[in-house]
Amino acid sequence: MQIEKYKLEEHNHSLQKEHQRKFDFIAADIKDVNGLLQKLIDFQVAIPSWALGTGGTRFGRFPGGGEPRNLEEKIEDIGLLHALNRSSGAISLHIPWDIPENASHIKALAAQNGLKFDAMNSNTFQDQPDQELSYKYGSMQHVDKAVRKQAVDHNIEVVKYGLELGSESLTVWLSDGSCFPGQLNFRKAFQNTLESLQEVYAALPDHWKMFVEYKAFEPNFYSTTVGDWGQSLLYTSKLGKKAYTLVDLGHHLPNANIEQIVALLLMEGKLGGFHFNDSKYGDDDLTVGSIKPYQLFLIFNELVEGMDAKDMNHATDLGWMIDASHNVKDPLEDLLQSVEAIMITYAQALLVDRKRLAEAQNNNDVVTAQEILQQAFRTDVRALVAEARLRSGGVLNPLSVYRSEKVRESLIKQRGSKTVATGL
Amino acid sequence: MQIEKYKLEEHNHSLQKEHQRKFDFIAADIKDVNGLLQKLIDFQVAIPSWALGTGGTRFGRFPGGGEPRNLEEKIEDIGLLHALNRSSGAISLHIPWDIPENASHIKALAAQNGLKFDAMNSNTFQDQPDQELSYKYGSMQHVDKAVRKQAVDHNIEVVKYGLELGSESLTVWLSDGSCFPGQLNFRKAFQNTLESLQEVYAALPDHWKMFVEYKAFEPNFYSTTVGDWGQSLLYTSKLGKKAYTLVDLGHHLPNANIEQIVALLLMEGKLGGFHFNDSKYGDDDLTVGSIKPYQLFLIFNELVEGMDAKDMNHATDLGWMIDASHNVKDPLEDLLQSVEAIMITYAQALLVDRKRLAEAQNNNDVVTAQEILQQAFRTDVRALVAEARLRSGGVLNPLSVYRSEKVRESLIKQRGSKTVATGL
Amino acid sequence: MQIEKYKLEEHNHSLQKEHQRKFDFIAADIKDVNGLLQKLIDFQVAIPSWALGTGGTRFGRFPGGGEPRNLEEKIEDIGLLHALNRSSGAISLHIPWDIPENASHIKALAAQNGLKFDAMNSNTFQDQPDQELSYKYGSMQHVDKAVRKQAVDHNIEVVKYGLELGSESLTVWLSDGSCFPGQLNFRKAFQNTLESLQEVYAALPDHWKMFVEYKAFEPNFYSTTVGDWGQSLLYTSKLGKKAYTLVDLGHHLPNANIEQIVALLLMEGKLGGFHFNDSKYGDDDLTVGSIKPYQLFLIFNELVEGMDAKDMNHATDLGWMIDASHNVKDPLEDLLQSVEAIMITYAQALLVDRKRLAEAQNNNDVVTAQEILQQAFRTDVRALVAEARLRSGGVLNPLSVYRSEKVRESLIKQRGSKTVATGL
Amino acid sequence: MQIEKYKLEEHNHSLQKEHQRKFDFIAADIKDVNGLLQKLIDFQVAIPSWALGTGGTRFGRFPGGGEPRNLEEKIEDIGLLHALNRSSGAISLHIPWDIPENASHIKALAAQNGLKFDAMNSNTFQDQPDQELSYKYGSMQHVDKAVRKQAVDHNIEVVKYGLELGSESLTVWLSDGSCFPGQLNFRKAFQNTLESLQEVYAALPDHWKMFVEYKAFEPNFYSTTVGDWGQSLLYTSKLGKKAYTLVDLGHHLPNANIEQIVALLLMEGKLGGFHFNDSKYGDDDLTVGSIKPYQLFLIFNELVEGMDAKDMNHATDLGWMIDASHNVKDPLEDLLQSVEAIMITYAQALLVDRKRLAEAQNNNDVVTAQEILQQAFRTDVRALVAEARLRSGGVLNPLSVYRSEKVRESLIKQRGSKTVATGL
Repeated sequence: MQIEKYKLEEHNHSLQKEHQRKFDFIAADIKDVNGLLQKLIDFQVAIPSWALGTGGTRFGRFPGGGEPRNLEEKIEDIGLLHALNRSSGAISLHIPWDIPENASHIKALAAQNGLKFDAMNSNTFQDQPDQELSYKYGSMQHVDKAVRKQAVDHNIEVVKYGLELGSESLTVWLSDGSCFPGQLNFRKAFQNTLESLQEVYAALPDHWKMFVEYKAFEPNFYSTTVGDWGQSLLYTSKLGKKAYTLVDLGHHLPNANIEQIVALLLMEGKLGGFHFNDSKYGDDDLTVGSIKPYQLFLIFNELVEGMDAKDMNHATDLGWMIDASHNVKDPLEDLLQSVEAIMITYAQALLVDRKRLAEAQNNNDVVTAQEILQQAFRTDVRALVAEARLRSGGVLNPLSVYRSEKVRESLIKQRGSKTVATGL
Repeated sequence: MQIEKYKLEEHNHSLQKEHQRKFDFIAADIKDVNGLLQKLIDFQVAIPSWALGTGGTRFGRFPGGGEPRNLEEKIEDIGLLHALNRSSGAISLHIPWDIPENASHIKALAAQNGLKFDAMNSNTFQDQPDQELSYKYGSMQHVDKAVRKQAVDHNIEVVKYGLELGSESLTVWLSDGSCFPGQLNFRKAFQNTLESLQEVYAALPDHWKMFVEYKAFEPNFYSTTVGDWGQSLLYTSKLGKKAYTLVDLGHHLPNANIEQIVALLLMEGKLGGFHFNDSKYGDDDLTVGSIKPYQLFLIFNELVEGMDAKDMNHATDLGWMIDASHNVKDPLEDLLQSVEAIMITYAQALLVDRKRLAEAQNNNDVVTAQEILQQAFRTDVRALVAEARLRSGGVLNPLSVYRSEKVRESLIKQRGSKTVATGL
Repeated sequence: MQIEKYKLEEHNHSLQKEHQRKFDFIAADIKDVNGLLQKLIDFQVAIPSWALGTGGTRFGRFPGGGEPRNLEEKIEDIGLLHALNRSSGAISLHIPWDIPENASHIKALAAQNGLKFDAMNSNTFQDQPDQELSYKYGSMQHVDKAVRKQAVDHNIEVVKYGLELGSESLTVWLSDGSCFPGQLNFRKAFQNTLESLQEVYAALPDHWKMFVEYKAFEPNFYSTTVGDWGQSLLYTSKLGKKAYTLVDLGHHLPNANIEQIVALLLMEGKLGGFHFNDSKYGDDDLTVGSIKPYQLFLIFNELVEGMDAKDMNHATDLGWMIDASHNVKDPLEDLLQSVEAIMITYAQALLVDRKRLAEAQNNNDVVTAQEILQQAFRTDVRALVAEARLRSGGVLNPLSVYRSEKVRESLIKQRGSKTVATGL
Repeated sequence: MQIEKYKLEEHNHSLQKEHQRKFDFIAADIKDVNGLLQKLIDFQVAIPSWALGTGGTRFGRFPGGGEPRNLEEKIEDIGLLHALNRSSGAISLHIPWDIPENASHIKALAAQNGLKFDAMNSNTFQDQPDQELSYKYGSMQHVDKAVRKQAVDHNIEVVKYGLELGSESLTVWLSDGSCFPGQLNFRKAFQNTLESLQEVYAALPDHWKMFVEYKAFEPNFYSTTVGDWGQSLLYTSKLGKKAYTLVDLGHHLPNANIEQIVALLLMEGKLGGFHFNDSKYGDDDLTVGSIKPYQLFLIFNELVEGMDAKDMNHATDLGWMIDASHNVKDPLEDLLQSVEAIMITYAQALLVDRKRLAEAQNNNDVVTAQEILQQAFRTDVRALVAEARLRSGGVLNPLSVYRSEKVRESLIKQRGSKTVATGL
């Protein structure tokens, strides 16, 4: 489904005057507002193909309707989001849920929707119907070399699909671990995993990156074999310079200081990218910014500072992806909210007065350092984000257009109310 | 499947000598060993009907084989466990997963296996195929009175089924809550839930108990409407004397002192029963005693002390149930391990020298108080538990018999390797 | 120390133009801006007398200089804060750290500084040099009736001091609990505590409130006898209608949903007041709003909603206090930041569109409900808070005046650099 | 104070018969009981000099009496413990609390008590009265090079003291970190700290080890500059082969899997040693084994497995120290309980059937793997530990002797009831 261009324009027109008032107000306080807007325009967040349908928990799933029935429809859905916010210009595929049977067709469809192919995701945490060996007791960690080989081969196949589509990175999330004390020899599990990763790494094209994601717990409830940033860094250091650590905000123990982890990974040149979401208890996979927006700001604050210190390009040198689950919301609305939260937070982080902050830090002036961060966070930057959208061809209020154009209703009409997105 | 009696006897005979050595050793230190053994013999743990198949997480499920295909086979499985350990003499049913179409037949089958019907469990956390209204946004808390009524009616129907089978309690676990700030008006959610519970309560037979279970989070990830023991106690106090709080060990925030909660609920006369399991992170539903056995001991220590102070019957005055999920183990083996852990811990709690403990407490002799508890916990009571099993007709080592008799292999042969237990 | 009035005026004058621009911008979006400002003006946060000096941890303390040497100087310090922000018009005393030897003199001095006496705080968590019996093993929970009596008598004496000063509430925070399993009989500890509280309650004037504060852990590390809101509510319900639960934001287990607790306590008519601070790990006692500002907003959102539903007066019907520790900041600057954060958050909560929120909730429109809350939280309300300060005689930027007037330097000059505030 | 030898013998004699019965019972099940006993005999746990007096919290301290007034008396106290349990044959000093003014005298006194000098501990988390620059804003991380130099010099001085006494390791625990977002540039704090550690490292004798301890939080409540094992490993890897990571059990985020961390550090050859204690909430510093004895067992299980895999000597190749605080117990009794818990747990870990465990792991037989660990943990090994004590000249029940000989009463008589151990 596509919304006709004139409708987007009508929408923008109707809100223009009020928007201008707000934008002028905030712009007056910013030195290089155009430079800042350009950064916002350049910043793109990849949408994972599995986030377009209703998620669920082990207790149940309450599907909405109109979910995409295949990869083509997933691309269309992201294309629709991108048409509205101009910040969702990439898709992150999951194999085997989204095998591109006809790569050139898929590639063309994506291009048509203004989308690139971000990191490819492999899956060795589930058994597929046709799969020879089971991952019940792990994949890359498995005591049986044949299972490990199956997992390695799968990852190499995922890279192959990615190559056809123009992706340049592979995200390896392993659910490998154990549910009970004694189940694993931790050392051997590490070494098996390392060896498996090395085999995949060896098959990785030179211009590709490998992202090694860590997670504290779930679906294994005693140990996870890539369980924290320290473990991921051990793997990626041993693997080599194409290997990077990927941070998913929901994959930490309670109270972890994620922003410090981000800063140190950046310092080590080993931060690869992000899975954005929010959470209160565990890997809750809630809408970005819905629970702890200040923590998200502090993370972006480190990202901007650390990337600038290394002369990195904000838009291209790290992988930015959403990884959320939508149990009680329309997935597309949820994604619009998530991207909006990311853009707002990025804008706030760009507003931090870095020179004064460095001064305050050098003077141990803790009060002023806090004031500087809060000054940025308390600023209402929504008009900046809206202006960036406007300038790049999007709409002032994506959610409002989505609703007034009755997108969900159309999708249900078109696809039916009982569809289930692949992978869910 | 049933194991022939002579095989059990052969097993016991082969281990008898070694067992006797161990039992004599420990018995020598116990004043009234027969009294203690009788308490162990009397203590029965209900097995939930949903714990007989392979569990799973939202990421996947790795089924074993030979899972029970219907209620009859579930009863048989528990009958088998009970024949081995003589401590699993009850079944806790879940509706609609285990609707007893022919109650008298089911009742007879259970009796044949030596099983009683423990608490009935209702389900308003999932939508059933034929269900009119959805529980996506809650059941008893729902803003729509019609949904609440549907949930109330379902619970009343569950009571009806229970009555036919001779059950005398209803466990109400509500997953009701919210995933995002703003989604719920907490006060109205509470009041709707209270009103719904009151309607069920009104329909409850006089000799029945209603257990109101609480849970900190999952599947809702922002708030839960019966979220902690304080909330459950508010409901059960307002409901009346047939209403009790049910404690599931995995339903707490990190670091919670569950044994203190248990003591206070007992003090208030509002503790109804237990769902046993173990966990490291959240509601991990691991084998009882596999992660924090000392915490389990401290809980049993409070139970014994508190029940004795009120002259309660350990075996009958609270509901004892397992509630676990078996992702990487044979469910029946897991249940044998869980029951064993419960019996061991109960035996240890019975060994606590209460008179000396009270003295130490009165003298603020913290060191001695700790020593007294550790003295009991460090005692190897396995021979006591085995002796209790022996005297009540079970076997010395249930797990060993289960394996040597190749029970799982027989079940697979009989039921197939691709069965999925109802409710999973 | 007092800052001369003309300096405050000069400061305001210098910032007036820029302030007016910002205020006009935000005011244009608010229906009844004067009504909202009045609420902000009326809202007063009590400063605890122990928060005026440098705090510390068990590992050490790094004092700044110029700390108040006695109660008079503490009152002067709060008077100074209040002169700047007009929102700190109350002091919360701690006995025995701040015994008002000459009550009428102290009362006059407070009045001179525009300050009222908020809740009185007793101390039975430390032994005083002249104290007969030790609280090493608890106070109101103690197995020895004589110790309990000493604790009760102390609380009654605190009430007496409070009466002389015009206070109308007593905050009872008990550190009572245990460090090791076995140390306490939980039930007897509860009953001893209840009995002790009842004796204090009996001595409480009719127009007074008793606040029973709870805390999950520290300084006891196994159990706390008033450990969570459920326990506090048990006590306050049994005590009677003058007894209320007090919520300190830092006194919860990880991930607790404090806003839900607040809503339920309000529903029960048992919320008494707040101790504001912020924390990441435990009772960190950090500056309000410095770590989780959105959580603070969600709490205020419940407060406004719940108080309005009961027709309560925001300013007077609950006790609002700060309880923080200042280890690395100038305490007075920290307090200015804390009060500012509270006022900002209160203003945001007042901006929530309650009618639309209720509608969204009734429609299970989770997305819109979230948008409504975020709309308020993302609004930059600082100009509203500044305007309220301006209209009530304070300054536009308190922190800036504090620094430019070199208050700390003056205090050090006046009081010395090695002073230690009583109680620290 | 010393207990006369004949009294120890009398004590042992009186318990001998019962002990023999228990020892014979357990010994019958162990293949090489003498080999196991020798390992227990060889295993020595260092007592920190600061653990001999009553600890406290920021809220207060409740001193007992008879605390050691100087280093000589501390050595005497540990000597007494060692005479009883023969497993406390080392002391870990803290500078500047225990400066050995006369090293040869101190050395002789220690030798006389059978004690070695284990790791030396530096202190840059407090300001000493005569100290030039303050550590308020950190030590090795400090933005001011002069402060960093002061911290480095102090550590080098600590090494010098250690050299005189025959110690061979330095434990660096830094409380460096921040209390508020913005306070630190994480990257610069890391780099400053690394540079400082490198300067100390350069001054370290070749046969010495440097232990870099990590801690999640406290006394800094937002970030800690050596905050987790991953950060410590980064430092120690960059420092070189004399640098190792030290694990304190209480220094982790909630729910951390410490045993996995231990296994990985061992795998990397970077585990240096341990600070034993127990905790429920944070760095509670409770008696070893008093809260989570099974976790302690799982850690020892990894230690034994991992050290054996590397042919390490259990007794000498890692540093074993207690680090606890004694708020409500007699410190010497607490230490006896802690050492006992360590010895019991070590014995249980030695009993694990490693061959069968490896088989079970290779077969993914999770149930059996759990059984094997539980078999060891459920075994009552106290008679083994007692026998090891007996054979090495200690007593069967140290705590009982300590009490019957009225040690505390004697110490109070000798030293007074108001003494405060240095450093407390």
